[in-house]
Amino acid sequence: MSLSTSSDRTHAERLAELTALDAWWRAANYLSVGQIYLMSNPLLREPLSREHIKPRLLGHWGTTPGLTFLWAHMSRVIARDDRESLFVTGPGHGGPAVVAAAWLEGTYTERYSHVSRDGEGMAELFRQFSFPGGIPSHAAPTVPGSINEGGELGYSLAHAYGAAFDNPDVLVTCVIGDGEAETGALAGSWQSNKFLHPVHDGTVLPVLHLNGYKIANSTVLDRIPRSELLAQMEGHGHRPYVLEGGFDGEDTMAVHERMAEVVDEITAEIDRIRSRAAEQYAAGAEVERPRWPMLVLITPKGWTGPTVVDGQQVEGTWRAHQVPLTGVRDDEGHRRQLEEWLRSYRPDELFDDDGRPRAEVLAVSPVGSHRLSATPHANGGELLRDLRAPGIREFAVEVPAPGIANASATGTLGVWLGEVARANPDGFRVMGPDETASNRLQALFEVTDRQFLGERRDGDEHVGPRGRVLEVLNEQLCQGWLEGYLLTGRHGLFNCYEAFVHIVDSMFNQHAKWLEASRSIPWRRPIASLNYLLTSHVWRQDHNGFSHQDPGFLDHVLNKKPEIVRAYLPPDANTLLATMEHCLRSRDLVNVVITGKNEQPQWLDPEAAVAHCARGVGIWEWASNDAGSEPDVVLGCAGDVPTIEALAAVDLLRTHLPDLKVRLVNVVDLMRLQDEREHPHGLSHRDFDGLFTRDRPVIFAYHGYPWLIHRLTYRRANHTNIHVRGYKEEGTTTTPFDMVMMNELDRFSLVMDVIDRVPGLSVAEAGLRQYMGDERLRCRDHTRRHGEDAPDVVEWVWPV
Amino acid sequence: MSLSTSSDRTHAERLAELTALDAWWRAANYLSVGQIYLMSNPLLREPLSREHIKPRLLGHWGTTPGLTFLWAHMSRVIARDDRESLFVTGPGHGGPAVVAAAWLEGTYTERYSHVSRDGEGMAELFRQFSFPGGIPSHAAPTVPGSINEGGELGYSLAHAYGAAFDNPDVLVTCVIGDGEAETGALAGSWQSNKFLHPVHDGTVLPVLHLNGYKIANSTVLDRIPRSELLAQMEGHGHRPYVLEGGFDGEDTMAVHERMAEVVDEITAEIDRIRSRAAEQYAAGAEVERPRWPMLVLITPKGWTGPTVVDGQQVEGTWRAHQVPLTGVRDDEGHRRQLEEWLRSYRPDELFDDDGRPRAEVLAVSPVGSHRLSATPHANGGELLRDLRAPGIREFAVEVPAPGIANASATGTLGVWLGEVARANPDGFRVMGPDETASNRLQALFEVTDRQFLGERRDGDEHVGPRGRVLEVLNEQLCQGWLEGYLLTGRHGLFNCYEAFVHIVDSMFNQHAKWLEASRSIPWRRPIASLNYLLTSHVWRQDHNGFSHQDPGFLDHVLNKKPEIVRAYLPPDANTLLATMEHCLRSRDLVNVVITGKNEQPQWLDPEAAVAHCARGVGIWEWASNDAGSEPDVVLGCAGDVPTIEALAAVDLLRTHLPDLKVRLVNVVDLMRLQDEREHPHGLSHRDFDGLFTRDRPVIFAYHGYPWLIHRLTYRRANHTNIHVRGYKEEGTTTTPFDMVMMNELDRFSLVMDVIDRVPGLSVAEAGLRQYMGDERLRCRDHTRRHGEDAPDVVEWVWPV
Repeated sequence: MSLSTSSDRTHAERLAELTALDAWWRAANYLSVGQIYLMSNPLLREPLSREHIKPRLLGHWGTTPGLTFLWAHMSRVIARDDRESLFVTGPGHGGPAVVAAAWLEGTYTERYSHVSRDGEGMAELFRQFSFPGGIPSHAAPTVPGSINEGGELGYSLAHAYGAAFDNPDVLVTCVIGDGEAETGALAGSWQSNKFLHPVHDGTVLPVLHLNGYKIANSTVLDRIPRSELLAQMEGHGHRPYVLEGGFDGEDTMAVHERMAEVVDEITAEIDRIRSRAAEQYAAGAEVERPRWPMLVLITPKGWTGPTVVDGQQVEGTWRAHQVPLTGVRDDEGHRRQLEEWLRSYRPDELFDDDGRPRAEVLAVSPVGSHRLSATPHANGGELLRDLRAPGIREFAVEVPAPGIANASATGTLGVWLGEVARANPDGFRVMGPDETASNRLQALFEVTDRQFLGERRDGDEHVGPRGRVLEVLNEQLCQGWLEGYLLTGRHGLFNCYEAFVHIVDSMFNQHAKWLEASRSIPWRRPIASLNYLLTSHVWRQDHNGFSHQDPGFLDHVLNKKPEIVRAYLPPDANTLLATMEHCLRSRDLVNVVITGKNEQPQWLDPEAAVAHCARGVGIWEWASNDAGSEPDVVLGCAGDVPTIEALAAVDLLRTHLPDLKVRLVNVVDLMRLQDEREHPHGLSHRDFDGLFTRDRPVIFAYHGYPWLIHRLTYRRANHTNIHVRGYKEEGTTTTPFDMVMMNELDRFSLVMDVIDRVPGLSVAEAGLRQYMGDERLRCRDHTRRHGEDAPDVVEWVWPV
Repeated sequence: MSLSTSSDRTHAERLAELTALDAWWRAANYLSVGQIYLMSNPLLREPLSREHIKPRLLGHWGTTPGLTFLWAHMSRVIARDDRESLFVTGPGHGGPAVVAAAWLEGTYTERYSHVSRDGEGMAELFRQFSFPGGIPSHAAPTVPGSINEGGELGYSLAHAYGAAFDNPDVLVTCVIGDGEAETGALAGSWQSNKFLHPVHDGTVLPVLHLNGYKIANSTVLDRIPRSELLAQMEGHGHRPYVLEGGFDGEDTMAVHERMAEVVDEITAEIDRIRSRAAEQYAAGAEVERPRWPMLVLITPKGWTGPTVVDGQQVEGTWRAHQVPLTGVRDDEGHRRQLEEWLRSYRPDELFDDDGRPRAEVLAVSPVGSHRLSATPHANGGELLRDLRAPGIREFAVEVPAPGIANASATGTLGVWLGEVARANPDGFRVMGPDETASNRLQALFEVTDRQFLGERRDGDEHVGPRGRVLEVLNEQLCQGWLEGYLLTGRHGLFNCYEAFVHIVDSMFNQHAKWLEASRSIPWRRPIASLNYLLTSHVWRQDHNGFSHQDPGFLDHVLNKKPEIVRAYLPPDANTLLATMEHCLRSRDLVNVVITGKNEQPQWLDPEAAVAHCARGVGIWEWASNDAGSEPDVVLGCAGDVPTIEALAAVDLLRTHLPDLKVRLVNVVDLMRLQDEREHPHGLSHRDFDGLFTRDRPVIFAYHGYPWLIHRLTYRRANHTNIHVRGYKEEGTTTTPFDMVMMNELDRFSLVMDVIDRVPGLSVAEAGLRQYMGDERLRCRDHTRRHGEDAPDVVEWVWPV
C-alpha cells in the first residue's frame, strides 16, 4: 500500500504512518542483530542460551540502524509517489541492514527460496550471515538490490551517478559513510553533479551519513564545525539538508517525524527542480545546472544498540562499529544484555506465530519492482538491450597490400564509435580523463558532445548539456561512472592513457570480483562487459618521458579469474575495429584493448582483419617464407609497435639471409597463448605447436613486461625456446626508436636475437650481427641528434 | 638582497621592487619559451630562422607563466622575511617554468656545470628540454627544488603536507593545477589541514591555479560560480584569497601590484596564526586548528603568449596548453610571431652581452638555501639523519624451541615501533587508514597519539594534537604524506590492509620511478626507503570475504627496477622485527613487508631470526631430516601462513613417511630466489642449488599468486621441478582453514603434492594419499560447520 503525506492530513494519520514505519525499522534492526549473533532460536521463543549464539561473532552493527532508518524513510516516499528508485549502500559492512530489508520486502525469498519469509527462513537468514559457506558482511552481489558491494570503500557516489545517467525516471539514493567520505575516490565524486542532465538523466540524492566513527577512530567530517561541513556541501553545488537525531535518548518517533518532514521537503524540491528543467528544456532554453539537494544524516553509531557495556559507553562511539557485546556465549551478563537488546524491538509485535512479518510491519513498503531490493536497475542484465552498432566494414581502412596504407588505429575507431553513439543515444557512453581528442577519438565529436552542465563559454568546442562523452580528469570517476552505468544495464567504454590506468587497479579488482561472484548467482543476469581502451601507450610516450611509461596493467588484470578477463593487442586499425566490436557485444567480462593512436602502416584489409581477430592468433603468410614447411625461426609479435619491429626484422632477415625460413605469428588475443585448460580462449597444445613449433627458436616481440609471455606459455612444449623482448623498465625523454632500442625490442636487436638463437648462425653470420649492431647505434644517434625518428626508421615500409 | 614592504615605504620604492620582480618574471618566461622552441640563437642576437628551431616541438606553455609569476612573488617575501621554503609544482608539464627559475637562481648551473649561467649555458638549457637524452617536461628529479614530478597528476598537496610535518620553520607553497584538482587524490588531500599542528609542523599554502583548461577541455572548478568555489575552500577549512589578473590585456604591473598585496596579507596572516598558536601552546592551552589561508590564483592560460594564431584565440584557452605556434619551422608567419613573442620580454634588458642575467633581474631573488630551487628540503638526503632505534633483542619473543611460543607478529612489532617513535619525536611517522589498532600495532599508542587537529571529544582514545601516528581512511593520502615526508629527509612506515594497497599502485609506480631516476643524479642524496607493512592479508580475510582478498601487490611492485624494490615475507614475530629494522635503516628503496597480525606459533628465537633474515633464505634444520645429505623432496615456503602449512605438512610426512628425507627451506627475502645477475639480492646458481637442489622435487608454499615464484626461479637449474601452491583467486566468507584448502595450500594438499611428485610414492602410498584427502575434507567440513577452525588445525603445534 502507499501512504500519502498531503498537508491536509490529520496528525493522527501521520502518526499512524510513522508508527508503521517504525515497526518496519524495528523489524529490520531486529533482523540485523539476529544475523550478527544467532544460530537458532530466531524469534526468541525460548530464553537465549549459549547454543543459540554463533561460535564466531562477525559483523558490523555500527552503521546498520542508520541504513535501515534511511531505507524505511525512502521506501515511504517511493511507495507514496510510485517512484522508480535505487539504493546505493556506501558504508562498509552494511550487509545486515540491506539483507534484512530484502528479506522483509520478500525479495530475498524470491531470490533464495530456502530462505523463506518465516521463522525457518529467518533462522537460515541469521545462520548464513558472515558464516562459512554463507554470505559476506557487505552489500555483495548476493544481495538483491545492490550494485555496490562496499567491501573496499569509496565508490558509492560514482556508482550512483553512473546508474543515474540516461535513467531520467530513477531516483538514486546514495548513502555515503563518513569513513568512506575520507577516500580520494569519494572526495572526487562530488564533482559528478556537474555532469548530470536534469531532464535526460535521473536524480542522485547523496546522503552523507555521519555516525562519527570508523573502526577505531573518529571521522574527519564529524569533527569539523557543522558550518564548515555545510559550506563544503554548498561548495560542491548542493543544497544541504540536515537531520540530526537519536542522541541523548531522543524518542525515535520524534526522529521519524523530523526525518519524514525532511524527506518530504527534499523529494518536493527534486520534483520542482526536474519540472522547472523540463519546462526550460521544452521551451528550448538553456538548461541550468540545478543546485540539487543532499542530506546530512547524523545518528549515533550503533543507534538503539547497547548503550553501555562493561561500564564503557558503546552506543555513539567506535566501540559500536562491529560486535558491541563480544562475550555473549560465555558471559551471562552479556547474553542477558543481548536478549534485552533484541527484545527491545518487541519481536512478537513484528512477526506472527510462524515468524512471518505482520501486515502492519509491511504497510510502509513499496510493492513489486518499486521495492528497493527488487529494482531491476540493480540487476542490470534484466534491462540490458543489445548494442545497436553498424558493421565495421564501411569504417575500415582500405589496405590494398600490407604496409601500403597509413592510418591511426584510434582515429579510425573514433569514426565507428561516433556511429555507435548515434545509434544508442541513451545506452552507450564513452568515459575518459580529458583525452578523447588526445587519444584521437575526436571523430566522436562530429556526432556528439562532451556532456557538461557547468558554465559553458563562447569558444567552447564540443561541450554541451547532453552528449555521449563524459570527460573528467579523474580516472576513478571515469571507471566508477562506467561501472554504475554497466551494472544498471547499459554499454560503454573507458579510454585512458596506458600508464595511468593503474590509478584504477583496485577498482578493477573489485569490479572483477563482483563479476566473478555474480556469475555464480542464477538470478544475476549478464551485463555488458567493462571495456578499456588503453592508448598513448608505453612505446609512444618517448616525449612525455619515464613517468608516462608503464605497460603493467595486463599483469595486474591477469591475476583475476580467466573466466572474467580478456586482453587484446590489435596491431592496426582494422584489427582494432574488429576487436572493439567484439568487446562491446560481449557480456560479464573485463576486456583490455591496447593500441596506439599514431599514424602507422596498416597490415590487414578488413576481411583479413576480421578473420585474424576471430582466430586471435595466426601466421601472417605474406610475411613468412616457410611456405607450410617447418621454419628455422618463428617471430612472434603482440602489440602494434612490436609488430612493426618484428615485420621490419623479417624484412631485414629476408634481405640479408634469404635462405632462412622465417615464420611470423601475430597475436591479437593474448589469452590464446594459454593452455585451453587454463583459459576459455586458450589454444590446445596441438594448435599452439602448429603455430610456434615444438622445437624451433621463437623470438617474441611483446608490448609489455616480457615475463607475461613466459607465464602464458609456461605449459607449452616449446616454452624453453621462447625468447621474449618487451618493456624492461628502460625509458626516458627520447625518440620512439630509442624507446624500442633501449629495451632491445628494435628490429636490429630482433635480427641479432635470431642470429644468436638459430643454430649455426652466430658463427656464420658474425659479420651480419656486427652490421646490425652498428645500424642500430647509427639509427639511435641519428634520431637522438635530430630529436625525431631517423628517416629510414620512420619511412620504412613493408616490401610490396 | 632582501626587499622590505613596510607600510611606510613610498610608492616609488614599491614600484621599483615590483619592476625588478617583473624583470625576473619576464626572464623566466623568456627562458621557458626558449626551452620549448629553440635549438640555438638563444639570445636572439640574430633574426630567428628555421635552423634555430627544434625539429620536434614539445612542451607545455599553458601553465608556465602562472607558475613563474607565483615563484617570483613567493621569492619576494621569502627574501624579505628570510623564510625557509619549498615550492611544490602540481600542474602537469610545468617543467619549463621551474627549470627556468632554477637557472636564473644559479642553482641549475651549480648542479649541472655544463649548463652555465650565460649564453652558452642558455643554449644548452634550451636544447636539452624535452629532447632525446635531455630532460622531461615535468618537475622531474632532475630539477633542483622539486619533490613532485607532476607527470601523473594529483599528488602535490599530499606531498606538500608530508613535507610540512615536523618542519615548523618551513613554508610550503603548493600550486595545484585546476586539472589536477579534479583527481581523486587531490580532492581527498584537502583534508590534510586537519592533521597539521600549527606549532610543531610547518605551513602549507595551497594555491589553486585556475587557468581554466586542461588539454582540450575546460576544468570543472573554473566553470562553477566563484561563490561556490569559495564555499568549497571554506568548507575545506581555509580562508580563501583570490587574485584574478591578466585578463583583457590588463597591465602586468597592475597585476603584480595586486598580487604583492595579497601575498603580503597571506604571509602576515600565516605569521599571526603561528604566533597565536605558539602563545596558546606555551600557555598550555588547547591548540586550535587554524583557518589557514589559501589562494585562488586566476590567470589566463598561456598568459603573455600569442593572443591569436591563424585567426583563433589562443591565450586564455586550451589551445595554449602545449605549443601555441606549431608551424614555426616552416611557416614564416608563425616564426615571426614567435620572434615577436620572445622579444616582447625584452631579452636585452634581462641578459647581458654574455647572456648572464643582469643584476636588476636577480634583485628579487633570495640567496643561498632560501632560493626555492636550492632548498635542502627538496633534496631530503642532505637533511636525513640516521633513525634512532633500539636494538630489537629486548622486544623479541622468547622462543625456547620452534612452535612453543605464541605471538602476534605485528603486535610484537608495535612495541618496538613505539620505542622508535619515542626516540624520533620529529623524524619518524606511521601512516595508515584507521588500521593501526586493527593491524595490532596498538602498542604504539602507549607512546604516542594519533595526531588530529579536528574537534576532540570526551571518550576519544589516543587522539591528540601531536602524535607520531597519522590515520585517515585514504590510502592515497597516507602514501602521499609519507612520500613527502621521506623526500624531505625523514623516516616512516605505511601500514595497510594487503588487498587495498592496490589503491596506491600508481603512486607506488611514480615514487619508484622517481627513485630510479634520482639514483642516477649525483647531487640527489639518498633518502629513507618507503616501507610498506601489509597485514590483514589474504589468508586471514576469511571473515571479510572475497573483496578483501588480493595478494597481488608484489606482482605489481616487481615490475619495477630490481635496484629499487625489495619484498619480505617474515614467517613470525622475530623475523618481522629483524626485517623491519633492516628496512627502516635502508635508503632509496621500496620495501614491501607482508605478515599477519594473528596470534600464531613462533619458530625462531631472536638470534636465529636475525641470522635467518640476514641470509634471507635458509634451510630450517630442525624441521628437516635430510641431515646434510641430498633430500628426497624440498618443501619451500614464503609467508607466515604458508610456513605454518609447510611445517604441518613436514610433521605429517615425518609421522607417516619417516624414511622420506625432507628438507624445509624458508624464504624471508623473496628476491633471494632470483639470479644474482638479475637482482642485487639474488643468489648465485650454486647457492640456490645448494638449497633447492638441482633435480629433486620442490613443493613451494607461497603467500601470493603462484606465478611469481616461477618468474623469480625461471633461470634455475631445478626450475621445472618447482611446484608452487599459492592464492589462485579462490575465496569467500569462510574459515582460515577453508581459505588455504580452497587454494590447495593446506598441509594435506602439500603432503599429497609430495606423494605425487617424489618418484615411486604415488603408487606405494596411494593409501596415505587417500587418507590425507579424507582428512582434508573432514577438517574443512568441521571448520565450516562450526564457523571456526577445527581444533586439530588450530591447536596443532610443531613437535618439540
